[in-house]
Amino acid sequence: MRTVNVDLGDRSYPIYIGSGLLQHIGEYFKNHGISTKSPLMIVTDDHIAPTYLSSLESTLSAAGYESVSKIVKAGEPSKSLTVFEDVMTTAIEGGLDRNSTVIALGGGVVGDLAGFVAASYMRGIKFVQVPTTILAHDSSVGGKVAVNHPLAKNMIGAFHQPELVLYDLDTLQTLPPREVSAGLAEMVKHGLIRDGDFARWCREHSSELVALDPDALGYGLERGCSIKADVVSQDERENGLRAILNLGHTIGHAIEAVAGYGEYLHGEAIAIGMAGSALLAGRLGRDSSIYDETVSMLQSLKLPVTMAAHLSTDDIIKAMMHDKKFREGHMLFIIPESIGSVSIVKDVPVQLVRETIDQLREGGEVLV
Amino acid sequence: MRTVNVDLGDRSYPIYIGSGLLQHIGEYFKNHGISTKSPLMIVTDDHIAPTYLSSLESTLSAAGYESVSKIVKAGEPSKSLTVFEDVMTTAIEGGLDRNSTVIALGGGVVGDLAGFVAASYMRGIKFVQVPTTILAHDSSVGGKVAVNHPLAKNMIGAFHQPELVLYDLDTLQTLPPREVSAGLAEMVKHGLIRDGDFARWCREHSSELVALDPDALGYGLERGCSIKADVVSQDERENGLRAILNLGHTIGHAIEAVAGYGEYLHGEAIAIGMAGSALLAGRLGRDSSIYDETVSMLQSLKLPVTMAAHLSTDDIIKAMMHDKKFREGHMLFIIPESIGSVSIVKDVPVQLVRETIDQLREGGEVLV
Ligand SMILES: NC(=O)c1ccc[n+]([C@@H]2O[C@H](COP(=O)([O-])OP(=O)(O)OC[C@H]3O[C@@H](n4cnc5c(N)ncnc54)[C@H](O)[C@@H]3O)[C@@H](O)[C@H]2O)c1
Ligand SMILES: NC(=O)c1ccc[n+]([C@@H]2O[C@H](COP(=O)([O-])OP(=O)(O)OC[C@H]3O[C@@H](n4cnc5c(N)ncnc54)[C@H](O)[C@@H]3O)[C@@H](O)[C@H]2O)c1
Ligand SMILES: [Zn+2]
Ligand SMILES: [Zn+2]
Repeated sequence: MRTVNVDLGDRSYPIYIGSGLLQHIGEYFKNHGISTKSPLMIVTDDHIAPTYLSSLESTLSAAGYESVSKIVKAGEPSKSLTVFEDVMTTAIEGGLDRNSTVIALGGGVVGDLAGFVAASYMRGIKFVQVPTTILAHDSSVGGKVAVNHPLAKNMIGAFHQPELVLYDLDTLQTLPPREVSAGLAEMVKHGLIRDGDFARWCREHSSELVALDPDALGYGLERGCSIKADVVSQDERENGLRAILNLGHTIGHAIEAVAGYGEYLHGEAIAIGMAGSALLAGRLGRDSSIYDETVSMLQSLKLPVTMAAHLSTDDIIKAMMHDKKFREGHMLFIIPESIGSVSIVKDVPVQLVRETIDQLREGGEVLV
Repeated sequence: MRTVNVDLGDRSYPIYIGSGLLQHIGEYFKNHGISTKSPLMIVTDDHIAPTYLSSLESTLSAAGYESVSKIVKAGEPSKSLTVFEDVMTTAIEGGLDRNSTVIALGGGVVGDLAGFVAASYMRGIKFVQVPTTILAHDSSVGGKVAVNHPLAKNMIGAFHQPELVLYDLDTLQTLPPREVSAGLAEMVKHGLIRDGDFARWCREHSSELVALDPDALGYGLERGCSIKADVVSQDERENGLRAILNLGHTIGHAIEAVAGYGEYLHGEAIAIGMAGSALLAGRLGRDSSIYDETVSMLQSLKLPVTMAAHLSTDDIIKAMMHDKKFREGHMLFIIPESIGSVSIVKDVPVQLVRETIDQLREGGEVLV
């Protein structure tokens, strides 16, 4: 088993990564002071529930925990205030009290939704993540939880750190291939921002990663979580450094919004966004090899690096204007300086961004 | 001008109390580092807006602040997730960013709603309270913000401290008499839990208070805020001591819920609840003079001390069971030990609570 400690003073917590962990969830809970006196709530989705829910319920029950479960529809639309209120209903009807714990069994959608429920139920109760996607190695570090507003993604949320994260590699084996690659996009992102060797390791081990080899996956998740934990522990509430984690996200979020949630997975959109950031880096005078290497890494993980022809540059620019990363009207981007290091560039001229978006379009001219 | 400092480490903030403060809101904002570069949002209700909104907007604008305003319907039903989402829409459309500030111009409803918006918009932005009710002297101290769930009041919320509170006594002059008394209920509550002399001062100055005399009001609000601030600074997240602020609230919330929001104002319901706590104190062996004194204080402020005959004891007990103050199934009450001091009593027998509720009913036997 591998352990990553997320170091946040009195909000610190461990991420346990390994096979067969869920069978011992009761012991982990007891070691982390989760009381059997208050009911738990498991939140999961209807893709995950059939395979993993009842066994989690029985393991918890055998360990002396009472629990209620809420199964939401799989997919991004469940990150809405309507579903949030439904989950709250289950919590109230299940008698959750201030000492209760919410367990997110699932990917980033369930994690973000259940986490915001835990942050707000009675003004905040305990939260445990049991990630079942690769992408969730990202969402399980840093305590960002949120639901979407019809006008903007992740607009309504909180910072709420979990008590612990139990990453059971066995649950990843059923993940569909597209979801696997989408999750690996955030993994390689962690290499691209802080650790060039790790980004190159991801490319070298891309076939094992894509094939869900437990050893490669265990190491990749550990490194990915560690890099993110390191950034977050220096800037818990995103006042500065933490922004580097948004590499590829400004363009990526805009693509997700304009394409309509569903056409691209989050990880796919940010893969395109990272290709875009590398293009933008070239326009801002950085070495063009950054773009070539970034693209080869993304492609080795079976990720897209161009966007569909029907997406309009105007719409994408407009969507970016709503993005929360534009403080006081300036266009701020995370720009790669080399593979493994990035900088925060304020005042990027909108014209360069436009040209980059044009180039990102399928069939667009990609030479920098 | 009077100032109360709420001492919460790096989340400390001042409450300014006096006449004519709103005319200088721009200076207060500048002294507290509120930037003119990011738009503000004013949240208020349709009783308050006609009298106070446009002058607040022009004062802010004259001071160089851009703002958008959201007017919600007056009343408790606006503390819903639906209205919360509407306010979020205004914030997004108004271009609020991470450096923006939400201003609550109103009573506890607007304060709780706008405060939860500020706590959750982009995971938390700045918040300023401009209370226009007496009751809001309570809600403006301590950072509790929330909306209601259809099944339970204040169930969805956060702790989010304001940057400052501007209590302009001039705005209180238009408050309807019932709202005045309801607000005074929380004021005398602060005396009842920590300062018997202040509770007696409230009774002695009840006619000035009810008549909104600025001197009496200024002093009463200052003392009320100070007592609450003192309790909150010892227990920001309600792990212990802060529970004493719930004197009268366990019964009061249940009465509000069963009567349907609307029949009783919050302050009226908790006045009945405080009479109930004093009765319960008698049943638990405390001096019966506590009840007599409590009732005389509440009545001097024109507050009810019995509840309507149509409310059933069963329904009220059931509503209490949902109440978040029952940790792990035990019935916990705040019980007066004398005028000016209370204790937290766990394991109050349900039978005593039933008998107390029966007695609280209009025409019930009130002798202890
Ligand atoms: N909070 C953060 O810091 C953070 C960081 C990154 C992403 N996110 C959020 O995460 C979300 C995306 O996360 P995601 O990609 O995990 O999405 P997801 O939770 O929707 O999971 C992707 C799909 O895989 C299915 N699935 C999950 N686990 C499975 C398994 N083991 N076997 C089979 N199917 C499985 C799900 O039902 C879903 O259909 C977005 O909403 C994004 O905003 C949050
Ligand atoms: N957060 C906390 O710590 C806390 C503490 C106590 C109460 N509360 C909450 O506060 C709410 C009750 O607060 P409230 O009594 O101030 O309610 P409120 O905000 O509904 O105001 C009462 C009524 O007076 C009107 N009004 C307000 N100011 C006015 C003015 N100056 N002139 C004329 N009319 C005016 C309002 O429109 C409303 O109709 C409840 O929802 C309660 O849960 C919160
Ligand atoms: Zn992401
Ligand atoms: Zn109250």
